[in-house]
Amino acid sequence: MKLSQSFVKTVKTTPGDEVSESAKLLLRAGYIYKEMAGVYDFLPLGMRTLDKIIQVIREEINAIGGQEMRMTTLQPKDNWVASGRWDDDVMDVWFKTKLNAGGELGLGCTHEEAFTHLMKTYISSYKDLPVYAYQFQTKFRNELRAKSGIMRTREFMMKDLYSFSKNREEHEEFYEKCAATYKKIFDRLGIGNDTFRTFASGGSFSKFSDEFQTICEVGEDIIYLDREKGIAINEEVYNDEVIAELGLDKSKLEQHKAAEVGNIFTLGFKYSDALDLTYNDADGKRQKVFMGSYGIGPSRVMGVIAEKLSDKDGLVWPEEIAPYKYYVIGIGEQGEKIANELHEADPENVILDDRKNARNGEKFADADLMGIPYRVVISDKTLAENKLELKTRATGETELLTIEEFKNKLS
Amino acid sequence: MKLSQSFVKTVKTTPGDEVSESAKLLLRAGYIYKEMAGVYDFLPLGMRTLDKIIQVIREEINAIGGQEMRMTTLQPKDNWVASGRWDDDVMDVWFKTKLNAGGELGLGCTHEEAFTHLMKTYISSYKDLPVYAYQFQTKFRNELRAKSGIMRTREFMMKDLYSFSKNREEHEEFYEKCAATYKKIFDRLGIGNDTFRTFASGGSFSKFSDEFQTICEVGEDIIYLDREKGIAINEEVYNDEVIAELGLDKSKLEQHKAAEVGNIFTLGFKYSDALDLTYNDADGKRQKVFMGSYGIGPSRVMGVIAEKLSDKDGLVWPEEIAPYKYYVIGIGEQGEKIANELHEADPENVILDDRKNARNGEKFADADLMGIPYRVVISDKTLAENKLELKTRATGETELLTIEEFKNKLS
Repeated sequence: MKLSQSFVKTVKTTPGDEVSESAKLLLRAGYIYKEMAGVYDFLPLGMRTLDKIIQVIREEINAIGGQEMRMTTLQPKDNWVASGRWDDDVMDVWFKTKLNAGGELGLGCTHEEAFTHLMKTYISSYKDLPVYAYQFQTKFRNELRAKSGIMRTREFMMKDLYSFSKNREEHEEFYEKCAATYKKIFDRLGIGNDTFRTFASGGSFSKFSDEFQTICEVGEDIIYLDREKGIAINEEVYNDEVIAELGLDKSKLEQHKAAEVGNIFTLGFKYSDALDLTYNDADGKRQKVFMGSYGIGPSRVMGVIAEKLSDKDGLVWPEEIAPYKYYVIGIGEQGEKIANELHEADPENVILDDRKNARNGEKFADADLMGIPYRVVISDKTLAENKLELKTRATGETELLTIEEFKNKLS
Repeated sequence: MKLSQSFVKTVKTTPGDEVSESAKLLLRAGYIYKEMAGVYDFLPLGMRTLDKIIQVIREEINAIGGQEMRMTTLQPKDNWVASGRWDDDVMDVWFKTKLNAGGELGLGCTHEEAFTHLMKTYISSYKDLPVYAYQFQTKFRNELRAKSGIMRTREFMMKDLYSFSKNREEHEEFYEKCAATYKKIFDRLGIGNDTFRTFASGGSFSKFSDEFQTICEVGEDIIYLDREKGIAINEEVYNDEVIAELGLDKSKLEQHKAAEVGNIFTLGFKYSDALDLTYNDADGKRQKVFMGSYGIGPSRVMGVIAEKLSDKDGLVWPEEIAPYKYYVIGIGEQGEKIANELHEADPENVILDDRKNARNGEKFADADLMGIPYRVVISDKTLAENKLELKTRATGETELLTIEEFKNKLS
């Protein structure tokens, strides 16, 4: 991508009502644009990062048998009346709207009802099970307050997977497989070391649910972490009985603020009961389908990463999710020529800062602000040795590489 | 993809209220699921086809300088009040909703206002122009009736691009470039031969807009086509004066039913005036930005293709947008073994019908119904010559290839 041709520019000021530090950085760096509190557009750089996060999740979820599809935002009322979640008193984050043709609709804030209803068409026998279906989709939640940038918004991207199993045993096998996959996902996203499986409140079909909590100063949750075992307890279920049940030692637990980046939940028969989702077992007897749900919010994760990994100079993206890998600046005629060649060699990985009206100092500052993993500078000085300078954003380390050595890194 | 592991099955019956033939086929073949009139989920096969259509459009729009981003569905009221389009009397397809925190919001049915408002942050000088920004995004339209399957829905995928130019000349250059690109897109999507640039009603800033109309029996428009020149006139502006103005011969014009698959529109100063989007020219004088809009509905296009190219046996997808390219059936132990190998060699292009509980006749019928471009059968009979049978869905032609010859086609 050539910066001279990008309509987005880094900006110095952010909307006065923006209090989230990560959102301020994302706004200044040109990743997002604020429509209103809790509602953000994704500009080209932001969209690329979001899509890369989505792709990491997609690859790992496909690897454990997830089948991707896409449900609708508009939700017919009936399914939600059946599950008891249509009332605003029960579900206080509904956005609702009216059909011109008559009738009320909801905007999907989650999709248990929709997936359960859909599966009535496709599940009838034990031979049809298990099923793991998921989507990446925009969810709508009518939050009363939205002050955490893209970490908690009224419109956000969600990966929601629903499992349909013959029984609890089959369910639990997938549940554990998915938990292991979540660990892999957060490792690839660059927050694995600070993200912990956390016992949280469950429901009728299991005492606990599992959250994945990332230690984060602006997180909304409190967790108690056993760092050695790599597991934590959410404050909401933290008590002596639970500590004992999990075999943890209270004196070793660390208290942290944390942000929930994923959750997995045993739904049991809650929705299959409400919407009558059954199958015939091998003996021809009707059985209820045993369900689970598994969420990760890619846009929320993007906010948490922006919050955790940024520094005073700007964003710092892990390589796998950076919108581009290299930020290339050519100084002087020969430097610009080579910078141009490097961009042409791999435009999907290289931002070329070819702006005529920006000083070198501005270019360096923008490279840092945007958080591109590697800054590459080619100048008369580096070219005297036939080299370029490669600076790693996360560590600040620089090294000199020959042009050839660097070209070998491009795809 | 292995059919034995797909939760979706072809089905025999479709919802009683479904009147669209293409929707019935898409429902039966397991591409879509109907939530309610005009609201359809995209099942894994349908999602793949939709995403391939999107990818074709993306490649061509990027090639003419389009910058992709993603706006929000939730639309703050102010921008629409400024443009005069907030009232339901003016815009009769609004879905509106209420914020718990107070205030009304609209669900984006189009995004002129949002893009124009956003650009106020990024456009200030003639050096910032032109800008071509676009998105693929779900649009919501509160249609009173929705009886055309996925050709006209209440929730649908849209590619909408907005151009921001210094003046009419700069605008018209891009407008024509985009028109040529639309032709390329519809060629790649397999409907180029039946899709024509069509003069339709314009607005304050140009007498005509340009629609791209595909000849289609269930289309909602009437066009008058000069096949030799490859242009048409929409019934809404069809009269002797217009025919003369365009230099056409009335006696040569063919009347056809057609479905609009794209449109491009000169907006002029309509939105830059309303939302005060200006730039400083080279002399430092403030000028209004001259705008255009350019739409293609990928889900609508998918419906039109399904409608036009299907036959009595089912769907017929052009190669570039088929969810998979080959539908492979192995018959007998050796046939199944080789079928398995072919799938493993290229799972992104091959559907392996490895269902144990389906007869061969059902497999053949499902291959046709799903509209996969090539059916591959490996049986004892074909293996006697070390060959497999390749059948082209669109023509019904079959040929025998050696296993090696076919493997060379896989990626």
